[in-house]
Amino acid sequence: MLSITLITGNKNKASEIESILGNDLSLALSIKAHNLDLPELQGEPEYIATEKCKYASSHIDGPVIIEDTSLCYNALGGLPGPYVKCFLDKTGLNGLYNLLIGYEDKSAYAQTIFAYTEGKGFPIHLFIGKLNGKIVRSRGNLGFGWDAIFQPNILDDDNNCNKPNILTFGQMTPDKKNSISHRYLALQKVKEYFTQL
Amino acid sequence: MLSITLITGNKNKASEIESILGNDLSLALSIKAHNLDLPELQGEPEYIATEKCKYASSHIDGPVIIEDTSLCYNALGGLPGPYVKCFLDKTGLNGLYNLLIGYEDKSAYAQTIFAYTEGKGFPIHLFIGKLNGKIVRSRGNLGFGWDAIFQPNILDDDNNCNKPNILTFGQMTPDKKNSISHRYLALQKVKEYFTQL
Repeated sequence: MLSITLITGNKNKASEIESILGNDLSLALSIKAHNLDLPELQGEPEYIATEKCKYASSHIDGPVIIEDTSLCYNALGGLPGPYVKCFLDKTGLNGLYNLLIGYEDKSAYAQTIFAYTEGKGFPIHLFIGKLNGKIVRSRGNLGFGWDAIFQPNILDDDNNCNKPNILTFGQMTPDKKNSISHRYLALQKVKEYFTQL
Repeated sequence: MLSITLITGNKNKASEIESILGNDLSLALSIKAHNLDLPELQGEPEYIATEKCKYASSHIDGPVIIEDTSLCYNALGGLPGPYVKCFLDKTGLNGLYNLLIGYEDKSAYAQTIFAYTEGKGFPIHLFIGKLNGKIVRSRGNLGFGWDAIFQPNILDDDNNCNKPNILTFGQMTPDKKNSISHRYLALQKVKEYFTQL
């Protein structure tokens, strides 16, 4: 049984990941939550995640995993990206939408990176889940963070009609969101990695 | 003679500061440049500067000083702020201007923070120079970085006419800019501190 420490302030996140990873019987993983203040650096998302994982592994014994999420606007070369939380805090959902008022291109991608290492000094593995979509005016209140302004480019396969999705994350139930999200896509890659071990 | 290490990749910056601080005969300071890769954290400008100074003092013996500059839009709650360089790199001067297309309020402030400590474990002193102005479409090529879109709110005292300045930093000679800039204002506070020691 491999025991991995997930750095998070939210214990539910650990059990959520454990259940997503653990429903394949061949996987024997336990994920325990540990709250640690990780320094958030400036830079590219991959760099930020790598440095957070390095820092975590120098403070925690054994395997650790961290996650980092960005919202990247194509018209802005990927920004606000890792700074999206800061923009949300300072300018709200309207402010996040307004960043694109000068641009016709409202396309964006939501991205979660999980960074994992067996321990201090071991290689760091990145698992990147990227979901394309577009930025729209805020709709729906089922989600959190910037969910209400992100409308993913997926097919509305719930109704088997093959039409494009027209809902934001904020208009989807958490179950629906969690079955298609950038975080889900990244976790699939984590799962693949541990299955192949 | 107090010898202070300035963390910078640019040796000219050290002699520039030495000459600004040193033209008061009562000050006996030498500033030497040292190139050290400082981690840029996310957060408020004061926090970022403090952490950079802490990091520098743990890698350099003796007194160290670092500087950090932000461009803060009032309509965006102070953003892009410390991330301005990242926005400039990814979206250019037009991109930096476009962030405000959705807003009537184009006011902004340019801010340099010098963070100084006598050495590892000693208190960290912040010297903040803040210059109000507004964000305009790019004009002038005498400066660098985002100079061409920042028009400072000062009086045009060169002509003794008491009219408001209408030039961007990019339309001013470096000498003129350096005599009024946010960096100049911060350095005046540094100078005051060392004069009173």
